[in-house]
Amino acid sequence: MSEITIVPLILSGGAGSRLWPVSTDARPKQFHALVGDKSMFRATLERVQDGAGLRFSKPMIVCGAKHEDVTKAELSSASITDATLVLEPMPRNTAAALAAACLLQAETDAQALFLVLPADHVILKPHVLKAACLLAAPVAKAGKIVTFAIVPSGPETGYGYIKRGESLSEGVYTVAAFKEKPDFLTAQHYISSGDYAWNAGIFLFSAAALIHELSLHAPDILEATRQSVAMSVRDGNTIRLDHAAFAQAPSNSIDYAVMEVTDRAAVVPVDMGWSDVGSFSTLWELGTKDEGGNVASGVVMLHDAENCLVHSEGPPIAVIGLSDIVVIATPEGILVTPRDRAQDVKLASQAFKRV
Amino acid sequence: MSEITIVPLILSGGAGSRLWPVSTDARPKQFHALVGDKSMFRATLERVQDGAGLRFSKPMIVCGAKHEDVTKAELSSASITDATLVLEPMPRNTAAALAAACLLQAETDAQALFLVLPADHVILKPHVLKAACLLAAPVAKAGKIVTFAIVPSGPETGYGYIKRGESLSEGVYTVAAFKEKPDFLTAQHYISSGDYAWNAGIFLFSAAALIHELSLHAPDILEATRQSVAMSVRDGNTIRLDHAAFAQAPSNSIDYAVMEVTDRAAVVPVDMGWSDVGSFSTLWELGTKDEGGNVASGVVMLHDAENCLVHSEGPPIAVIGLSDIVVIATPEGILVTPRDRAQDVKLASQAFKRV
Repeated sequence: MSEITIVPLILSGGAGSRLWPVSTDARPKQFHALVGDKSMFRATLERVQDGAGLRFSKPMIVCGAKHEDVTKAELSSASITDATLVLEPMPRNTAAALAAACLLQAETDAQALFLVLPADHVILKPHVLKAACLLAAPVAKAGKIVTFAIVPSGPETGYGYIKRGESLSEGVYTVAAFKEKPDFLTAQHYISSGDYAWNAGIFLFSAAALIHELSLHAPDILEATRQSVAMSVRDGNTIRLDHAAFAQAPSNSIDYAVMEVTDRAAVVPVDMGWSDVGSFSTLWELGTKDEGGNVASGVVMLHDAENCLVHSEGPPIAVIGLSDIVVIATPEGILVTPRDRAQDVKLASQAFKRV
Repeated sequence: MSEITIVPLILSGGAGSRLWPVSTDARPKQFHALVGDKSMFRATLERVQDGAGLRFSKPMIVCGAKHEDVTKAELSSASITDATLVLEPMPRNTAAALAAACLLQAETDAQALFLVLPADHVILKPHVLKAACLLAAPVAKAGKIVTFAIVPSGPETGYGYIKRGESLSEGVYTVAAFKEKPDFLTAQHYISSGDYAWNAGIFLFSAAALIHELSLHAPDILEATRQSVAMSVRDGNTIRLDHAAFAQAPSNSIDYAVMEVTDRAAVVPVDMGWSDVGSFSTLWELGTKDEGGNVASGVVMLHDAENCLVHSEGPPIAVIGLSDIVVIATPEGILVTPRDRAQDVKLASQAFKRV
């Protein structure tokens, strides 16, 4: 079998508001080294290296125009000089981002396969993802929109669930149903059935296939995006989508706009050590713990502290006599909350944005 | 009765290590506006204004040489130009500080009365202190070392207790006993007896009287201090005690060195709204509370927070879902601890001093 060439398509438009004050408007989540010593953006780029029967061409990156500088600095530090950078004048969710990428890709090769990777996810076992790509590639080549869904580690209620249907080929299934965030008992039922996996926003498809589906199910998004691409300003590998045209695109996720309505969806369940690092609670789970169960970084003093996540990017932090607490300090702000309230952190992000 | 002239003697050598990271080596507790809108040092200066039958002469201030600049800035902001500033080359506790002040005062008028005021205490009712000074002045003129002790508000175990003896004059008593920090049951017993008050380090005495007592009970401290005064370098109202000589003075408190052994001690119990602001717990008690019992200053967001003390001198702080917590952020560091662990804060101060 000849090698399969795939274009990595990195979606880097996330805000990460539940990781305030690390993640900010100016430097969101994906540009921080939250797990390991490299930013999640760089780790995502390094995930798509040739091998295991796959060849990756130069990546395409879609991000907010206001993050052009930080993105280019990250690319430069990764010694990547040939990436295509697509700058969104404002966020319009994933459907418009993917539409723009597909239209641009179609200018040279509409049959090329895109591997869509959000820039703010952790994948501890990238070789599992690559093996799944090998399984999915023939199906994607044939016009399916393949989603890689995560084999659940527990009955999480914060994710969407995908029910697999009949087998299309080894490891690849039709999609029987999309289920939005279930309650706990329903999630337990999903897990025990063995038929469900988490929707993770990781896809393999050809540009032509997604454009076709968008034309059927989200023509307004496709049309506005087509205008913004036609009127884009191009400077080498940097493409600035037209402001007024892109603003006309309805803001919708690819899941709602296409995946839940198309008859071309396919799913490959994978167990690749995935995390979306959705909250500081997840960061504590992923972190290296001391004997007291604490995860600490920066200049930190812990005394009678257990199972805490403490992170300083500036002045020293002293935590005395507390358990199960998150303390995060950056020049942007300071967060103190119990680990099990980490989902509420976006309140702080919103509050201080209004200040 | 003619007005009585008193020299305010401000002891400003405290470190306040239980108020880290607000109180630091470079800018200890007394130079911060912890209660009200003026620093405790300035509030102490303003406490000694003429009235109620008392006249205060220009103050004498004893402080660490490293705090010369911040002290002069505070004096300047209080429009005080004639204060005598005695600079200690290193801390040697209160006995040596008072010895140096008395020897300097004796150069012009050894019979003058010193009112000793620590610069890092809160006194909400200074008129009560002044009334107590009026009662104590004749006794101090006659050679007694008068201590103003605080009528207890509860069975605190963190203070020394003074037992009053027989009456010397209205409101003034001999000292029957000094009792170091008692256990809780003993403290309760002291309170119910009505005979005990807290040692607060606030005194009235003549320079001559204290020099005499030091010559009897702490001659080594007196002699080393005398040398450091004799060899001091004087520049206008600023007196720099000699480094080598002052270093020879044993480090001891005036309580141990003189008060607990002299037969000239007298005590005036007072209820003057006193606090030594010994910990952040005290600051919470003194602070203005919102409907949730929180005391907050600086840019602070509280969500599901109760009875917390939150203070930022820099970036915004978000506290979500916590009760009875202290969160303090300054450029020096960040402290997070339960209110009832506030006594342990000096651990942080010590830890980061070693860094």
